[in-house]
Amino acid sequence: MSLATDAQDLLFRAARTANTFTDEPVTDTQVHAIYDLIRFGPTGANAQPLRIVLVRTPEARARLLTHVSATNGPKIAAAPLVAILAADTRFHETLPRLFPHNPGARDWYADPAFRESQARFNASIQIGYLLVGIRAAGLSAGPMGGFDAPGVDKDFFPDGRLRSQLLVNIGRPGPNAWQARLPRLEPTEVITTV
Amino acid sequence: MSLATDAQDLLFRAARTANTFTDEPVTDTQVHAIYDLIRFGPTGANAQPLRIVLVRTPEARARLLTHVSATNGPKIAAAPLVAILAADTRFHETLPRLFPHNPGARDWYADPAFRESQARFNASIQIGYLLVGIRAAGLSAGPMGGFDAPGVDKDFFPDGRLRSQLLVNIGRPGPNAWQARLPRLEPTEVITTV
Repeated sequence: MSLATDAQDLLFRAARTANTFTDEPVTDTQVHAIYDLIRFGPTGANAQPLRIVLVRTPEARARLLTHVSATNGPKIAAAPLVAILAADTRFHETLPRLFPHNPGARDWYADPAFRESQARFNASIQIGYLLVGIRAAGLSAGPMGGFDAPGVDKDFFPDGRLRSQLLVNIGRPGPNAWQARLPRLEPTEVITTV
Repeated sequence: MSLATDAQDLLFRAARTANTFTDEPVTDTQVHAIYDLIRFGPTGANAQPLRIVLVRTPEARARLLTHVSATNGPKIAAAPLVAILAADTRFHETLPRLFPHNPGARDWYADPAFRESQARFNASIQIGYLLVGIRAAGLSAGPMGGFDAPGVDKDFFPDGRLRSQLLVNIGRPGPNAWQARLPRLEPTEVITTV
């Protein structure tokens, strides 16, 4: 590995999904610095469809809590920051700027169903980069899939443009922040050769 | 940032999608080391649905080339290694081992359409980790979405279990490996607050 062992540990081996957090705030400056790093990760047609919605007001957090599972509600209520990670289904509008050497790129995504699937796929890859980036910043992430995504979309994105994919708590780990490490598949179970 | 600047550069800022490669081989040992690192990244219900198929035989590479775009064909033909990144639609079968504290987890995914969507979503997040991991190993990645995924699935995964999501060339960058960096969205365009 070219990446130093301590950096490998920071990003993957020692990093854990946090279930509790301290009350130290997470600032916009910190989140912008994380995105400023991970935005260089590759996406299809350089489309960068991930959108990050920081839920900061008590009113917005209370609304979000009406859409989440019983397990995730207390974690979100206590986290210093929770973000909605969403895919922009109209990402193609930015392609003349983001993929300038191919003026026809926007038209590859004329079909709305194909466009949404590509928005979701590339935004999901960017979620992988983002979770790594949160750890690179010295913070812990608490990603949560247990929520009513159509309900969140109707409530937070009434114009239908964004599709929520994941919620993530962000902060410094608090008391008893994690449970025992869950098992991982072995490389030999995941990697095959043809 | 807690991650050192040179590590940030290695993984994101200086890293580039490679379009040409040297002929230095990429070994199974290297790919296993990359996966051994990135397997600690979080996935929903710890499901780890990503599967990596290394296309090593000339016969398999020739078959793969029949399913790819005219732009990607020459890149794949010349790369030291190309991998098919796929989602395992039967990931739920491993949950009794991977998510042992909740014996009912397997049943959350009884519906095949929901299960496939979750397989694709979590495998895509893992693709983000994997592309970071390839760079952590000092190698360059050339991810390619331009291929006939149903055609690859029918040809390489006739039992219908795996769904291909992305192809990726892996190796050391060759001559003229990349073009000018494409524009990135600003943090202020991606991050909003409610």
